[in-house]
Amino acid sequence: MLTVKKFGGTSVADKERIYNVARRCEKAYRRGESLIVVLSAMGKQTDVLIDMAKEINPNPPKRELDMLLTTGEQTSVALLAMAFDAMGIPSISLNAYQVAMHTTRVHGNARLKRIDTDRISHELEAKRIVIVTGFQGVNKYDDYTTLGRGGSDTTAVALAAAMHADVCEIYTDVDGVYTADPRIVKKARKMKEISYDEMLDLATLGAGVLHNRSVELAKKYSVPLVVRSSLNDSEGTVIKEATKVEGMLVSGVAAEKNATRISVIGLEDKPGVAFRLFDLIARAQINVDMILQSIGRDGSKDISFTVPEDVADEAIKILEDNKASLGADKIDFNKNVAKVSIVGTGMMSAPGVAARMFECLYNSRININMISTSEIRVTVLINEKDTERAMIAIHDEFGLED
Amino acid sequence: MLTVKKFGGTSVADKERIYNVARRCEKAYRRGESLIVVLSAMGKQTDVLIDMAKEINPNPPKRELDMLLTTGEQTSVALLAMAFDAMGIPSISLNAYQVAMHTTRVHGNARLKRIDTDRISHELEAKRIVIVTGFQGVNKYDDYTTLGRGGSDTTAVALAAAMHADVCEIYTDVDGVYTADPRIVKKARKMKEISYDEMLDLATLGAGVLHNRSVELAKKYSVPLVVRSSLNDSEGTVIKEATKVEGMLVSGVAAEKNATRISVIGLEDKPGVAFRLFDLIARAQINVDMILQSIGRDGSKDISFTVPEDVADEAIKILEDNKASLGADKIDFNKNVAKVSIVGTGMMSAPGVAARMFECLYNSRININMISTSEIRVTVLINEKDTERAMIAIHDEFGLED
Repeated sequence: MLTVKKFGGTSVADKERIYNVARRCEKAYRRGESLIVVLSAMGKQTDVLIDMAKEINPNPPKRELDMLLTTGEQTSVALLAMAFDAMGIPSISLNAYQVAMHTTRVHGNARLKRIDTDRISHELEAKRIVIVTGFQGVNKYDDYTTLGRGGSDTTAVALAAAMHADVCEIYTDVDGVYTADPRIVKKARKMKEISYDEMLDLATLGAGVLHNRSVELAKKYSVPLVVRSSLNDSEGTVIKEATKVEGMLVSGVAAEKNATRISVIGLEDKPGVAFRLFDLIARAQINVDMILQSIGRDGSKDISFTVPEDVADEAIKILEDNKASLGADKIDFNKNVAKVSIVGTGMMSAPGVAARMFECLYNSRININMISTSEIRVTVLINEKDTERAMIAIHDEFGLED
Repeated sequence: MLTVKKFGGTSVADKERIYNVARRCEKAYRRGESLIVVLSAMGKQTDVLIDMAKEINPNPPKRELDMLLTTGEQTSVALLAMAFDAMGIPSISLNAYQVAMHTTRVHGNARLKRIDTDRISHELEAKRIVIVTGFQGVNKYDDYTTLGRGGSDTTAVALAAAMHADVCEIYTDVDGVYTADPRIVKKARKMKEISYDEMLDLATLGAGVLHNRSVELAKKYSVPLVVRSSLNDSEGTVIKEATKVEGMLVSGVAAEKNATRISVIGLEDKPGVAFRLFDLIARAQINVDMILQSIGRDGSKDISFTVPEDVADEAIKILEDNKASLGADKIDFNKNVAKVSIVGTGMMSAPGVAARMFECLYNSRININMISTSEIRVTVLINEKDTERAMIAIHDEFGLED
């Protein structure tokens, strides 16, 4: 039995928590399991290092920032190995270079390409717990790279895939995936299981439990994922291939407040206009969601879409700068909007699910601005202030607490 | 022109000092020099990391301690590269793995074996300043090692040797090597030049400016060394092969208070006794200095020697434990002693130098406990309280202020 366990920064923030992690691993080790432990940097150390860099250079070169940031995980893995040693458990810490965690070239947001498993296999055979730095890799120039925020989840899943681990456990400060955010929907229920696809939609939509890329990778290599709490022994949520479900179609409700709706009003209705508009946005590396196109009374076109709030100003500026060349009358936007979604495998093949959601919102006097759907998801754009009421109403409507 | 510049922890302790280092390098870079800059960890960071480790495990495994400590220099080199970037100077930071700084296996006190110069040469050709982590290496298992305290000096000299640099400049908080410690001997004079051998004796004897191993390495590969201040532009001291000197024979006075005299009294005068005694001490990895053997009135032997004060208790315990088997009557010791030395190339071939030193101490009513000599050095053991008086008197006697 080989398990990959990933612990986030909060779980290794100080001496006491490092020992908590060590004791939790000890149980599995004493049962005879082989263990790979993936760690993030301690507490807010990554932010501390970024601040340190910006003090020297407000716009630090990314290659050097990665060089600096990778010291964070190297510190936490070494300290955990020292804790294991104090407990009489053999272990070894390995950083991205020692594991040979090959990534693409780009700094700050690299993608994993290949892991050499020789060293890890060798250490596991010697009955050592192998502690690996999350978040970091090495590119073909032997330079350190980082995988972007939440990248340690991806490291853990990639290791589980490469080593053919039986399970990859992601320890976090919540004890699983819920039918809705329990801070908002009091009746929210922890799910025992959820499919990769549903989890992907929940992650994208702001459930915030798992890094999106890690779920994609787990799906690609069929790595069984478990999300569970580092603070208690409760069972957590298993994320795996969809199995046939009878009855329950909607598995969860998620909200994303970090959204801005942008509308380009009065475009001429001729081919290529939409392409030119989204090409401009894409060149700025801005992701667009929930595109809606409508024909105005005078035959002109309006195009609306949402973008993440933190890049909204940039998108608006691009559109204003190109208003003339696009032939648009006006750029309109609203930052006080939220996306609320229901997610469930096979939902689209069951008629009436979307209609039930719309009706429930109508009964709660919540106005729907835009709608988008996928195979396993229905998303509506509503006013931000209605978010919590909408989630509770939908959660009730589909009886998710049972 | 290729220069290696090494800056210690004090020189990179904060943002301002990092920029000081960057500006000093800028001048040389703008003149067209190729530069390799070797850095220690910032300020007292190495001590901070050791404390952090000991909090987790009072006796941390050395392999993991090295894994932790190497983050110190990785941090300082990345920050200096960011400072260069802000100044518009191309540079790149490299750690021991990226440089391929191969060392022996042992952690905490590894020795450099080989440096792959490919990456550094490539970066220098691209007109980048190459910033290298001091103090650290990588062993044949791909594990990080450290070179022991002051190891960054050794890194710098080794790089200068491997890259055939024109000069290796060691920046420190003093502005050169003095004829005596200027805090004690007010008339002490900064030397323009000194030979490797003299510097080695001064380093061993507590002048404390350079790491001993770095001087040995510089001598072995004939690397011209310069010790100079990171705070001002004064010229510093050049350390190189001895050149013929006329007149001046004694170049400096040094003192070492960290010494304990141990005497083993009443040994039987038969072969092998001295060997067994020093074998016992050597097995505990304790270095012995200034050995003196005398025959007592009853035909028994007394053996006296000095050891560093921090291992004195261990040495004394070993001798007490083996008193019976050594056939000794008594173990005696004195911790309040100091070694005072005069150093100078070719000194032994000039008769009367040692006698002048002894006479000068006699005139100052300073008692000599033990004497030892080498080709370029005369050392006396005296009472610790007389150290300063002895240094000033000797400095005067040999006219070192001129």
